[in-house]
Amino acid sequence: MLFEKYKETLEKATDALYNRTFYAAWAEHPKAYAEDGQAKAMEWFNSLIGGEYNELLQTNPAGFHGNEVSPYTQELLNIKYPAFGVSELVANAQAALPDWRHATPEIRAAVLIEALHRIEKRFFDIAIATMHTTGQAYMMSFQASGPHANDRALESIVLGYEQTKSFPHIAEWEKPMGKINVKIKKTWKSVGKGIGMVIGCSTFPVWNTVPGVFATLITGNPVIVKPHPGAILPIAIVVAELQKVMIENRFLPEVVQLAVDTADEPITKHLAEHHDIKIIDYTGNSHFGDYVESLQGKGKIVFTEKAGVNSVIIDSCTDLNAMMQNLAFSVCLYSGQMCTAPQNFFIPEGGIMVNGENVPFEAVVNSFTAAVDALTNNPKMAAGVLGAIQNINTCQRAEDAKELGGTVLLESRLIANEEFPNARTASPTVLLLEADQVDIYTKELFGPIVLLIKTKDTQHSVSIARNLAATQGAISCGAYCTSEHMKGHIASNMEDAFTPVAFNLTGPIWMNQNAAFSDFHVTGGNPAGNASFTDLAYVVKRFAWVGHKEMVYE
Amino acid sequence: MLFEKYKETLEKATDALYNRTFYAAWAEHPKAYAEDGQAKAMEWFNSLIGGEYNELLQTNPAGFHGNEVSPYTQELLNIKYPAFGVSELVANAQAALPDWRHATPEIRAAVLIEALHRIEKRFFDIAIATMHTTGQAYMMSFQASGPHANDRALESIVLGYEQTKSFPHIAEWEKPMGKINVKIKKTWKSVGKGIGMVIGCSTFPVWNTVPGVFATLITGNPVIVKPHPGAILPIAIVVAELQKVMIENRFLPEVVQLAVDTADEPITKHLAEHHDIKIIDYTGNSHFGDYVESLQGKGKIVFTEKAGVNSVIIDSCTDLNAMMQNLAFSVCLYSGQMCTAPQNFFIPEGGIMVNGENVPFEAVVNSFTAAVDALTNNPKMAAGVLGAIQNINTCQRAEDAKELGGTVLLESRLIANEEFPNARTASPTVLLLEADQVDIYTKELFGPIVLLIKTKDTQHSVSIARNLAATQGAISCGAYCTSEHMKGHIASNMEDAFTPVAFNLTGPIWMNQNAAFSDFHVTGGNPAGNASFTDLAYVVKRFAWVGHKEMVYE
Repeated sequence: MLFEKYKETLEKATDALYNRTFYAAWAEHPKAYAEDGQAKAMEWFNSLIGGEYNELLQTNPAGFHGNEVSPYTQELLNIKYPAFGVSELVANAQAALPDWRHATPEIRAAVLIEALHRIEKRFFDIAIATMHTTGQAYMMSFQASGPHANDRALESIVLGYEQTKSFPHIAEWEKPMGKINVKIKKTWKSVGKGIGMVIGCSTFPVWNTVPGVFATLITGNPVIVKPHPGAILPIAIVVAELQKVMIENRFLPEVVQLAVDTADEPITKHLAEHHDIKIIDYTGNSHFGDYVESLQGKGKIVFTEKAGVNSVIIDSCTDLNAMMQNLAFSVCLYSGQMCTAPQNFFIPEGGIMVNGENVPFEAVVNSFTAAVDALTNNPKMAAGVLGAIQNINTCQRAEDAKELGGTVLLESRLIANEEFPNARTASPTVLLLEADQVDIYTKELFGPIVLLIKTKDTQHSVSIARNLAATQGAISCGAYCTSEHMKGHIASNMEDAFTPVAFNLTGPIWMNQNAAFSDFHVTGGNPAGNASFTDLAYVVKRFAWVGHKEMVYE
Repeated sequence: MLFEKYKETLEKATDALYNRTFYAAWAEHPKAYAEDGQAKAMEWFNSLIGGEYNELLQTNPAGFHGNEVSPYTQELLNIKYPAFGVSELVANAQAALPDWRHATPEIRAAVLIEALHRIEKRFFDIAIATMHTTGQAYMMSFQASGPHANDRALESIVLGYEQTKSFPHIAEWEKPMGKINVKIKKTWKSVGKGIGMVIGCSTFPVWNTVPGVFATLITGNPVIVKPHPGAILPIAIVVAELQKVMIENRFLPEVVQLAVDTADEPITKHLAEHHDIKIIDYTGNSHFGDYVESLQGKGKIVFTEKAGVNSVIIDSCTDLNAMMQNLAFSVCLYSGQMCTAPQNFFIPEGGIMVNGENVPFEAVVNSFTAAVDALTNNPKMAAGVLGAIQNINTCQRAEDAKELGGTVLLESRLIANEEFPNARTASPTVLLLEADQVDIYTKELFGPIVLLIKTKDTQHSVSIARNLAATQGAISCGAYCTSEHMKGHIASNMEDAFTPVAFNLTGPIWMNQNAAFSDFHVTGGNPAGNASFTDLAYVVKRFAWVGHKEMVYE
């Protein structure tokens, strides 16, 4: 019955996904929802501060933990979450496993889509929670952790539902063997590989977590959500809503569990290395990501999104200002704390062609810094675009960047935030480098740090960008180019480094964005990660086909 | 054009595969092919002995290697194969990569199916080569390395072709944004992950190798085939035919390379650990398999088929003799050297119900040993069913098994082979054990060794079999049971250990067999292997989707 309710959603989303056309199951603007949503959410949030988070349906915690700090107030939220030991978490998941594994794909899909609708009712709460843990501006918090995350979760459900049904439940196999035919009745079932674990990050605690959570669930596995200790609240709401829907549908709430820890006493490795944890999803830095990937050697199925170095190749364009405004927005959006934010901008020393006329190198550089300056000095835009800085180390890195080498074009500085005078903010440091200053630009400089790199020509730019992507990883790449031939050259080179290219973006669309149902997020082919939101490998590795057969006697 | 020729084959195979119904693209009986096929192949084989194998199109070998021994004559074949250094092999593959990667799925599929038709013309050569390296009897050599292997290869092609086309090449994405719509032209391409390597085994050098070879190739990657040093010739023929078809279609022959080594100077680890080897397929023992799986921690994509302990659960049946004849054949077929051969037979101490009447435990045991005795003493059948023993250690293991403990019911002995008086043969050792003699039966005893284990009841049998499968791995499981309730209990328990169950087989079909397009071979869910012939994970992990996008200005 529940399945009938959501059948159309599944069909529409499947259709969009296989055609890669535009689809959004949830509206991205808060104004499409309750008018008083934000105010009520603020009230709810303020009531939580300094207290215990009691929405979860996991019982008998060993204690209560929580040290989140709001990047907007730089004060401890002091919200305490129930904490559980590793063996309790695993035992709870084992207890919840059989009923969930043996439920039909239809039931699992319906229960999970129902949960997404409950989560929708919490979009404002999740937005405020995201804002005051990640430092994202309000609008981005709402979009990224609300509708966009729900869409990505739905994408996992759609593909997982479809794939766990891709082979028939039953078939008769009849083999001609001379005078007789041998008949065998065969049955098949997709069986989830076992308990999953999803390790979240501090900057996108919902958007980067739910694809793995829902992919593990839809394929018949319980899941343990291990948020970053700095960003627990947004995903705690998601887990709580999932647990409520589980109970309503007669599953144990521990099909989904939240596993909080603290930076001082982390449990991630203990949990990840537990024999019964079979599937691990991870988003975060490459160092820990490499460790998580090493667990594949111990029989775990691992999906990672790590870090990369994203490039922009500037060859030519038709509108210099439109290009630079778009790029300035890309580097300022959430102060470069997106895994898709560009870091390295390659500009040919001879300048670029704009509408058939040469614009010298210096003019191109000045046009970029002017655009960044204009945005960061615009009191109506700056705070809402840059948001705040999640981790204090990121401010320090942006500050220190002026000592890296090269010419300092713009120094990082505080961005005033009227609403939150204590907000931890930083505008981008912009450096000018020569192409041979390889050591400076051949690594990720997470946060608001931008490097403009002078190359011999576009071929040179492409060659460096390709090599960077292949060796350091890359999640996005921007290119501005009016020549079909050169576009093809850029596309095929970046393709060989498993990096998608966004060409000639201007206006209200940026290279940082990957849309559910259409854009794959991370390719899984370069060191930025081994998985992709959401290709088939992302779901089919989480279950196995088991087929039984029986002789038919007639 | 070539694609048009094979379009129907692809469609038929896809249809069978998704319906899991009977399909065989090649006939399994040699009599369906040339009448003088076997005689000509023997002539060809005899001309090779003691010489250089010169069919390969790889040039400039560093030397020539080859130490294969025929299990039928126990003499060195002395066929020498061109050998290459690891860095040459990888450099050759790199050179062949771009054209193959950027070919369309249609071209790759057509070229690979064309190769299967060329391989078909060599079925007799491959059969003789398989017989004199693996010890398989002639009929099995023909079937397993010929039509059945070709069918498994076609299965990889079909799934890989379909999956590399599962998303569109191009789409227009249009997002409503208030007063305007943003239009983006998007393109996608499936890009092979890089050079593959397939590590073969000594008992099924073609059947177990071609699924990985064709799966890696169809998804756009070059492949290096590393046969077991004891069984090179059968797969060398396959590689040679692939190389010829590559050249005819203007690809470099090094899209597929043979990498021979010797037991004294193995190159497998050097090659597997090479940075540019991205995909590894492996069939063989669990010890080396665990090493290969550990390379996943170093960024390799790894597919394994290792070893397991296969059980038969005897609960009840309608025809005791028919059951025992079927089981005797299963344990004798190729002298238990199949990864699907049963080893542990669980029989309740109270005996079993046969057509509603109790047959006591001892009578069940006697019926089994009598059936094995009858088969191994039947001069018309024994040699053709048991074949010869690939590795001399296997004979020793069968011989030594009588000292393992328990009661020796049958001792291993030589099976006379009229045609090959020097053949290395061994009938099964059959032991009777108590259920508490855990140490003896909780491991794989590769070869002709059968353990009959007395349990309290069928529930007890199921519990042991499930636990063995979950901890030691299992590829197959047989069960004889007339109760629907108990069949369900067996099925769901073995399902939880990711093991397929074959119920009540009698007559000319055995639990050792897994049919292409219908039966998955290995589930990938227990320690017997991490991959499955051929589920979607088997192909989709070998490539990544890369999508580019471009703003549409109107």
